[in-house]
Amino acid sequence: MSHATPADPARSTTPARVYLDNGGRAPWHPLARQAFEQSLADGWADPRRLHAEGRRAARLLDAAREAIAAVLGARTQEVHLTPGHTASLHAAVASAAAARRRAGSAVVVGAVERAAVLHAARLAGGASTGAGGGTGAGGVAGGAGWGGTAESPGPIPVDRFGRVDADAMAAAVRAPGVALAALQHANGEVGTVQPVEAVHDAARAAGVPLLVDAGASVGHVAVPDTWDLLAADPADWGGPAGIGVLAVRQRVRTVAVGPEDEDPWAPGGVSVPLAFAAAVALQAVESDRVAQDARRRALVERVRAEVARIPDVEVVGDPDGRLPHVATFSFLYVDGEALVTELDRHGFAVGSGSACTASTLEPSHVLGAMGVLTHGNVRIALDRSTTAEEVERFLAVLPGAVARVREMLGVGGL
Amino acid sequence: MSHATPADPARSTTPARVYLDNGGRAPWHPLARQAFEQSLADGWADPRRLHAEGRRAARLLDAAREAIAAVLGARTQEVHLTPGHTASLHAAVASAAAARRRAGSAVVVGAVERAAVLHAARLAGGASTGAGGGTGAGGVAGGAGWGGTAESPGPIPVDRFGRVDADAMAAAVRAPGVALAALQHANGEVGTVQPVEAVHDAARAAGVPLLVDAGASVGHVAVPDTWDLLAADPADWGGPAGIGVLAVRQRVRTVAVGPEDEDPWAPGGVSVPLAFAAAVALQAVESDRVAQDARRRALVERVRAEVARIPDVEVVGDPDGRLPHVATFSFLYVDGEALVTELDRHGFAVGSGSACTASTLEPSHVLGAMGVLTHGNVRIALDRSTTAEEVERFLAVLPGAVARVREMLGVGGL
Repeated sequence: MSHATPADPARSTTPARVYLDNGGRAPWHPLARQAFEQSLADGWADPRRLHAEGRRAARLLDAAREAIAAVLGARTQEVHLTPGHTASLHAAVASAAAARRRAGSAVVVGAVERAAVLHAARLAGGASTGAGGGTGAGGVAGGAGWGGTAESPGPIPVDRFGRVDADAMAAAVRAPGVALAALQHANGEVGTVQPVEAVHDAARAAGVPLLVDAGASVGHVAVPDTWDLLAADPADWGGPAGIGVLAVRQRVRTVAVGPEDEDPWAPGGVSVPLAFAAAVALQAVESDRVAQDARRRALVERVRAEVARIPDVEVVGDPDGRLPHVATFSFLYVDGEALVTELDRHGFAVGSGSACTASTLEPSHVLGAMGVLTHGNVRIALDRSTTAEEVERFLAVLPGAVARVREMLGVGGL
Repeated sequence: MSHATPADPARSTTPARVYLDNGGRAPWHPLARQAFEQSLADGWADPRRLHAEGRRAARLLDAAREAIAAVLGARTQEVHLTPGHTASLHAAVASAAAARRRAGSAVVVGAVERAAVLHAARLAGGASTGAGGGTGAGGVAGGAGWGGTAESPGPIPVDRFGRVDADAMAAAVRAPGVALAALQHANGEVGTVQPVEAVHDAARAAGVPLLVDAGASVGHVAVPDTWDLLAADPADWGGPAGIGVLAVRQRVRTVAVGPEDEDPWAPGGVSVPLAFAAAVALQAVESDRVAQDARRRALVERVRAEVARIPDVEVVGDPDGRLPHVATFSFLYVDGEALVTELDRHGFAVGSGSACTASTLEPSHVLGAMGVLTHGNVRIALDRSTTAEEVERFLAVLPGAVARVREMLGVGGL
């Protein structure tokens, strides 16, 4: 039985591998693993049962919610656990929009939200989820299927850095027939931080609740308090996959969409050990977040500057208002999948293309909305354990890998 | 850090506790724990990624699906992992019903299916989910909201043992406008095995797919091959919560209800270590299933016989066609919650009432449909590690506990 720390697998082969794809699903924080093992011994029972084992599991679950609430600036009873981040987003959009059906059913979304948000918004009845953001300012699409008088806005465009147009989003939120607005805290694919505060101000003035997808930011940067619903992703901060976090301010009305006798946010319940591990991991990464922010930000700065020197490259995302650990670039004359594979052969794991949906070969809707190159794309996301030496090794091999892929594609002479 | 086996917490206090609530969520099988730790080292990465770590996780996930498929008598590609059993049931009903929209939208269900199935069937557009089963033979409720010409059947009644009326279900399946039928393999609350084979014959003849909820049976009894979709619950067989299994025969048409670029059965993906632990646990419990069946069946026989000697008790469920490890009884003049608490004080953990939805104080729709006492209900579910001595200790304290609760309620003299 292995007692290696979670980061070890990436380094256990010779030559030592460098894992630079720590976004969305990162190795478990070592303390998360300890917490999981402890709570598996004490919290394996169903926390809804009345006996001592059930009550002990319920106490662990409440402790997890309390710890997460403290980091999010929420009350314990406002924090719900879900089967995962995608489930959080779907449930939040469906439930909050349904509760405001009388006001309308349009869901105003940014153009670079996750596919789950775009999809749930379309299901809720209002928003167009076409990937046409970024091609025009505030274009509106006809709102079909919900009988309101207002038109439903398409996704709100973003600028070339991926930052949503706060004025356009504010205007869209103020329009009649809007049930809900959704804006990510930061984009996990390109790192750009969004103007959540300005949009929340506008939404609050309009009486529209704002869902903030903080799935790429919690554990990495400070969480704003400008949200009505907030979704966060344990698998992104060094906690387990298979569990999600959704915080809902007590003032926000929601409608349960499942059977009445189930937890509406997690029908069938959640795994208590996973919840506890998620909470312990969050406490752990919060405890040195500021130091890790500075350290990783400096490494990312270095990566962005060095990569910019490679010919025919576009370094993607906001240079300033960004996540500390994510760097993204698109290479002209390069196939992203081929570059990932070439880097992998040389011991470096990176993400590619639409990093959130790497299983498809579709171009990223995020990059498309930004109006930047949608192919030849690579994303790195630094773990807290990533060292400067590893980053330097990556920077040393990247130009050669790009050149080799270009040669394979017959554009080496360009 | 504790290295206790999962069963230890129930026995670590003095006097040793006896945990008899191993249905729906049981302690992890020790091998599941080992498998989890090993696959956390090798399978923490996102299996959808292209790099070595992602491919390694994908291989573990495929191995898990293959092992589960072998037990279910399915092909590997027919086995899907989901966020949990409730999610499996919801997705299976919604997806299979939507794929047959042209045939109709009614979903024929047994009256003692899980709440998730009843709810999903109602959502799909046809079935009434009222708890009125058992009060009449084959009554039909008007099918609202789906524009078909056929009437939608209400839940198919069950007899006093909780066994569904196979003839009535066959007739309902043959009616026009039916998209899907759903019948559990066995009822987890009372243990009764359902006539899945007869209903599958009728459904196949009618061209209607049958969803079998085997969440209470897989790992305990042999799995029939008379299904088109089959849902199974790792948390019930000694695997982890937070993951579910849904097998769909390749011939069955389904419609993805989520974003196109996501796994339709697990949007956002599943935890590979949980999947691997679930598969290893299933292999482990299958390896001595026959021996455990005989051993636990004898203990349950003993419990049912002894409990029947307590005054004013109804021993619930089919005496013969039943799960080997579940025993359920309802006591007149007893409040179920009070009895669970009284037993808990004396070191015995049992389930109560609607064991699947113990968080509510609603009477069980299962017991209601059976036409038996819906209060004063207690369920025990024996783990593979439960000993005869533990069962005898339980039988020794139960009559006194019942008498004390009756005294508290002022009916001690009855």
